[in-house]
Amino acid sequence: MRAVDVIAKKRDGLPLTKAEIDWFIAAYTRGDLPDYQASAFLMAVFLRGMTREETVNLTLAMAHSGDILDLSDIIPYAVDKHSSGGVGDKTTLVVLPLVAACGVRVAKMSGRGLGFSGGTLDKMEAIAGYNVNLTETEFRAAVGRTGLVLAGQTRELAPADGKFYALRDVTATVPCLPLIASSIMSKKIAAGANGIVLDVKAGRGAFMNTVESARELAQIMVDIGVDAGRDMTAVISDMNQPLGVAVGNALEVVEAIETLRGGGPADFREHCLHVAVHMLRLAGQGAKWTDTDEARKLLEHYLNNGAALSKFKEMVAGQGGDVAMVDNPALLPQAALVEEVSVVQSGHIAQVAADQIGIAASELGAGREKKGDLIDLAVGLKVYVKVGDRVTAGAPLATIYANDAAKLASCRERLTGAITYSPTPVEPLPLFYDTLYGN
Amino acid sequence: MRAVDVIAKKRDGLPLTKAEIDWFIAAYTRGDLPDYQASAFLMAVFLRGMTREETVNLTLAMAHSGDILDLSDIIPYAVDKHSSGGVGDKTTLVVLPLVAACGVRVAKMSGRGLGFSGGTLDKMEAIAGYNVNLTETEFRAAVGRTGLVLAGQTRELAPADGKFYALRDVTATVPCLPLIASSIMSKKIAAGANGIVLDVKAGRGAFMNTVESARELAQIMVDIGVDAGRDMTAVISDMNQPLGVAVGNALEVVEAIETLRGGGPADFREHCLHVAVHMLRLAGQGAKWTDTDEARKLLEHYLNNGAALSKFKEMVAGQGGDVAMVDNPALLPQAALVEEVSVVQSGHIAQVAADQIGIAASELGAGREKKGDLIDLAVGLKVYVKVGDRVTAGAPLATIYANDAAKLASCRERLTGAITYSPTPVEPLPLFYDTLYGN
Repeated sequence: MRAVDVIAKKRDGLPLTKAEIDWFIAAYTRGDLPDYQASAFLMAVFLRGMTREETVNLTLAMAHSGDILDLSDIIPYAVDKHSSGGVGDKTTLVVLPLVAACGVRVAKMSGRGLGFSGGTLDKMEAIAGYNVNLTETEFRAAVGRTGLVLAGQTRELAPADGKFYALRDVTATVPCLPLIASSIMSKKIAAGANGIVLDVKAGRGAFMNTVESARELAQIMVDIGVDAGRDMTAVISDMNQPLGVAVGNALEVVEAIETLRGGGPADFREHCLHVAVHMLRLAGQGAKWTDTDEARKLLEHYLNNGAALSKFKEMVAGQGGDVAMVDNPALLPQAALVEEVSVVQSGHIAQVAADQIGIAASELGAGREKKGDLIDLAVGLKVYVKVGDRVTAGAPLATIYANDAAKLASCRERLTGAITYSPTPVEPLPLFYDTLYGN
Repeated sequence: MRAVDVIAKKRDGLPLTKAEIDWFIAAYTRGDLPDYQASAFLMAVFLRGMTREETVNLTLAMAHSGDILDLSDIIPYAVDKHSSGGVGDKTTLVVLPLVAACGVRVAKMSGRGLGFSGGTLDKMEAIAGYNVNLTETEFRAAVGRTGLVLAGQTRELAPADGKFYALRDVTATVPCLPLIASSIMSKKIAAGANGIVLDVKAGRGAFMNTVESARELAQIMVDIGVDAGRDMTAVISDMNQPLGVAVGNALEVVEAIETLRGGGPADFREHCLHVAVHMLRLAGQGAKWTDTDEARKLLEHYLNNGAALSKFKEMVAGQGGDVAMVDNPALLPQAALVEEVSVVQSGHIAQVAADQIGIAASELGAGREKKGDLIDLAVGLKVYVKVGDRVTAGAPLATIYANDAAKLASCRERLTGAITYSPTPVEPLPLFYDTLYGN
């Protein structure tokens, strides 16, 4: 087989066979194909698209470009979740211990974030001592001990995806549904998931700006999972305004702990319960938790009675984290400068632009622009208003946590521009737009 | 400017500005952009196309990626020709001295060939001692001495084109009109041509298989030339069957010499006269040779009276070639094995498949598959029949000149398959389909 022939076939809009895709991905992963052939291939895929079958084959080829994690000896049915990323999204921190409290073993490999704020690993590192770099032996031991582990990759999963992703970033081939879907799903499949709940965000603070495009991406990923023999659920959730109140690493950890104590912002608590219900439903494999109302009641019970929080503390302790910080979040990294911002006019909140809030947090130092950038775990914002809220001038709008006066001023300005008011009532935004099932 | 933004713009089908094209080409030529960004760009151009303005800007950017040859001190108006390549095309060897015999100074930089048979330089090297590697000083001196020079590039013209071409070859982005047209025209413009006659071949032995696609390519090149301030003529000529009789390097030199003596195959002589008339018309700049019938008569006269042959010999002598070989072509490289092939059935010739004849010659060793391959100057074929000819079984069909018995047998088989017969009369193929003017 010759790379140039595979590229020409895709260039001409013809579907590639499984053998062609397998060969191309394997050769590229081995380093036998140069980047310039891979980038011509990616641009051809971008402009010509891929059929469902091709996308599935691409995903599986990438998943099998490295080892497939097999935890079946300690987790008979592995359920995983994936969020397409949004502002204030600390869902994993709550949902994992919550589901584990129900007796479902969860072993999750997370990533660091690019863009608005840190990823799940960055947030967990706000807790002093918490070790995200586990060996495979430590990872497995953690599952055996507490039924719950949240760490980085123990080895490189789907190495082809890593190579492709770096190339896509510099060749204008990122925003392409088959490539996005296969990138996400190849890592989930390589991580050994049997059932996957996808949280696909839609809105101005998300990669997919519209509900339609988010649904399209979700459907492709559900299709891939189904064809690869996985049980799938995808929820389409709103990301026009931030999720919860806190945006920023340590601030989000605090909010997650409050939620695990039975409190927390109403929208965030509801979001976590919704995602957790779907995880339980998949984990039950049609035998348990088929009644989602009952599953929800169980989850609410474990949030309210402290069982989920206990699981979280077990996990933190098991991975070397300072549990005292969970009991007393005031011990977490604190910003030097804290400024309250007030509502400037009475009326109704028409917009809390998630993208602008995200950029504001990132500019404070909460996010990273490129891989390897240092992030400031203490900084961020709390934004207290939601679209549809009736507000009075002078009431609390937000709090900014900064370590630099100039950045604080710039954040205040961006925050002010992100909020718009209406003299007449405004409909609140829904939390979820749709659910797609593939099981 | 960022390469990824230029790529994204073309990917989305938007026309690039002159500044964007200039920047991209200059940065790639300097080595500041990696091949993987250039190949993504090329695939986006392949699938999204380019406007006439973009194609002109791309051509000029490539032409100016190196030095522009300036011979205006010795050739006030430089006329050049370019053939898109075909089987048996030795036109340059006849047309250059013929036009020079009319008093038009011609300084041509030619290339080596890929594919069917050698290029013009390879053919000329069949004449012992002929030096194609001239310095710029020698190149200029030759023009001053005889008004005629035919050599390789004295320095790299349009280096961006060289880099792009190597990349296109391995990324399935060769057959793309704006890229083909800009590749050809950038080199012609860099070589300092004021007027250019393009001989664009159409048919199964040509890069463009149909008259329509050949016309489309020709029109783009004429448009580029016009927008770049050059005088342009393009002829669309047939390449379904070989041009002339001889295919192979030394064999084609012999045929060119015969034609310069006033003989040669009728189709080849006619082809040369037609191209030469257009070169004279451009060289006259509207003041001379406006009457193409008179120009043609002059050209015929110089073919018949030996003036063109004298010019050819002057050129050969001037570049160190053995003039005795021109006077006595039997001194040129000779193949060890010569085999006559006969017509197998009486009737009318329906096809002389140029592509198959070309491959047959290449397999004998007359062509090269990749840059740097050695070629055998002595081998090749003479094919005596043309589509429409009435033939009798047993009459001479072809002669094969080989240096290897196995290759000869394989050539005979391919040759036999290339010729088809019809019991009923067949229309001859035209020599030319169309002429496009841009001056």
